[in-house]
Amino acid sequence: MADEKRTPVTVLGLGLMGSALASALVRAGHPTTVWNRMPGKAGALVAQGAVEAAGVAEAVTASPVVVACLLDHDALHEVLAPAADALAGRLLVNLTSGLPDEARQAAARAARLGTEYLDGTVMTVPPLVGQPRTLLFYSGSRAAFDTHRETLAALGGNGVFLGEDAGAAALHDLALLGVLWSTLAGALHGFALLGSEQVPASALLPFLGPWITQVVLPGIAGAARQVEAGRYGDALSTVALNRAGLAKMVKASEARGVRPDLMVPIHGLLDAAVAAGHGGDGLASLFEVIRTPEGGA
Amino acid sequence: MADEKRTPVTVLGLGLMGSALASALVRAGHPTTVWNRMPGKAGALVAQGAVEAAGVAEAVTASPVVVACLLDHDALHEVLAPAADALAGRLLVNLTSGLPDEARQAAARAARLGTEYLDGTVMTVPPLVGQPRTLLFYSGSRAAFDTHRETLAALGGNGVFLGEDAGAAALHDLALLGVLWSTLAGALHGFALLGSEQVPASALLPFLGPWITQVVLPGIAGAARQVEAGRYGDALSTVALNRAGLAKMVKASEARGVRPDLMVPIHGLLDAAVAAGHGGDGLASLFEVIRTPEGGA
Ligand SMILES: NC(=O)c1ccc[n+]([C@@H]2O[C@H](COP(=O)([O-])OP(=O)(O)OC[C@H]3O[C@@H](n4cnc5c(N)ncnc54)[C@H](OP(=O)(O)O)[C@@H]3O)[C@@H](O)[C@H]2O)c1
Ligand SMILES: NC(=O)c1ccc[n+]([C@@H]2O[C@H](COP(=O)([O-])OP(=O)(O)OC[C@H]3O[C@@H](n4cnc5c(N)ncnc54)[C@H](OP(=O)(O)O)[C@@H]3O)[C@@H](O)[C@H]2O)c1
Repeated sequence: MADEKRTPVTVLGLGLMGSALASALVRAGHPTTVWNRMPGKAGALVAQGAVEAAGVAEAVTASPVVVACLLDHDALHEVLAPAADALAGRLLVNLTSGLPDEARQAAARAARLGTEYLDGTVMTVPPLVGQPRTLLFYSGSRAAFDTHRETLAALGGNGVFLGEDAGAAALHDLALLGVLWSTLAGALHGFALLGSEQVPASALLPFLGPWITQVVLPGIAGAARQVEAGRYGDALSTVALNRAGLAKMVKASEARGVRPDLMVPIHGLLDAAVAAGHGGDGLASLFEVIRTPEGGA
Repeated sequence: MADEKRTPVTVLGLGLMGSALASALVRAGHPTTVWNRMPGKAGALVAQGAVEAAGVAEAVTASPVVVACLLDHDALHEVLAPAADALAGRLLVNLTSGLPDEARQAAARAARLGTEYLDGTVMTVPPLVGQPRTLLFYSGSRAAFDTHRETLAALGGNGVFLGEDAGAAALHDLALLGVLWSTLAGALHGFALLGSEQVPASALLPFLGPWITQVVLPGIAGAARQVEAGRYGDALSTVALNRAGLAKMVKASEARGVRPDLMVPIHGLLDAAVAAGHGGDGLASLFEVIRTPEGGA
């Protein structure tokens, strides 16, 4: 049941994520208005207690807080264009994924309309939206974040404000997505290696968790310290040693019919690190070649 | 002090890892004999109570259990050649990293000498050797593993026997190393993205741990189930959606002077997955293109 003390919220976009956000708002008692471009996606939400609006301007007018969760920023602008006037004086919380510069452009556009702007990224999958530990990054208007903290908490209990630069949430999202993709691809590579000897993928799982939490994450924390200090010496495990290991990894993968695509560029980055004089340094020195397009120090 | 009830152990190779292994054995009370090719590396161990042998054959003869930790399998064979006779009737625990086939060849060679063989991999860095949670994989002679369980526990409390195929430890090592390299490279890429906007690397750390344990690891566990079932449907986050995200990642990285080398092949694998008909499936379907050299289904 909608609770009169809760801020009314409108959700634009009822894809997998938008629907999960709207549902979390309804569950938390917010009067919730929803809209989607293609009709037919609001049924379950209306049954839960949401109100479906016939058009975007009508949807926006229904609430002081408007959450947008669309495919990308192009879709965001397309959707918001007919509601420009209606947006004045409201808060736009944009949870559409995008690049930092896209977020900044959206913030600038909102400012021109007299709209407060918060950019956000949902750092989980739709079924975990609204849970106490669920992380969302926000950046943009600090005043809006502070005022609507409780409303935002309905979307995920761990809402982190990263600063007034509207691009900060997208920047941190990009960094964590890169870790998701690279780690998952690494695990799938491992599953393929095991599979080449008829060992099931799940055989790796009991070891993966401890390996990542006890070895990989401390290694990454150490790497962050070295990156900030710009010093990579006294390595327990050198670039040169790991380069030899990666050469073996590539060869062994190929010999088993496992595509080495993921491992080849890591080997290449290690080559570049050796060329830049980091052979005796730790793996964190790869940072120095990743951040310069020429791969030198 | 050496304890008369403990099995005497010889350690061949006193690099970073061999020294840590020898030191852990001394600390656990094992009469410990050490040897290294280049002299001058045994000083600290001798001060702790180890005995330095003048040659490999002499070192091997001193103990029923011989631990070897050398650079690679070529070095292993070079070192063991002059001690072939002395090895008969003893247990060789090879903790030199190598490929599964190298481990199998070493096991076959040991069998010809009348030597029991255990292959092992140390899944940590030298300073954590000997701790209760430290993981070592073993494979090869189950009888040797059972008989010497207590001695092996001195090297790390979490010793896991993976089976009588001597190559199994190296196979699991390879799979976990791939995850280490890909995850660390992904984190360094993230640090470089943050750095391009003057955000320090350590700003990512408070989010990385929860992100990996709450989002990435459950995703990998789900992927393992899908890989084993060979079914990748009902995805919350499709290959097509992530491919669009990776295209943005590559573009955004380049625009900031961050080398996209790690991300480009992941994008390429997603392209191949789409071409193989997995566009609407989950990311785990990448497995199907990684394990076939042609990148098809
Ligand atoms: N799914 C996840 O796990 C996840 C996780 C974190 C972040 N996100 C982000 O959340 C956002 C939405 O993702 P999703 O999973 O909900 O995607 P989705 O299920 O594909 O939904 C896409 C939504 O965008 C709308 N849309 C697309 N193009 C449009 C246009 N030109 N005009 C109007 N509406 C348009 C779609 O409307 P129609 O129904 O009319 O096509 C639909 O509502 C994305 O930015 C995504 O990166 C998703
Ligand atoms: N360091 C780590 O974090 C780590 C972690 C897990 C596994 N490992 C594995 O442990 C093994 C040893 O690594 P490490 O870190 O101890 O390396 P290291 O510090 O470079 O030591 C290499 C050892 O191999 C010896 N060696 C090399 N070539 C030789 C040859 N041709 N003949 C005789 N001895 C030779 C060296 O002897 P000299 O002193 O005479 O050169 C030295 O004792 C490697 O297989 C490595 O992959 C290491």
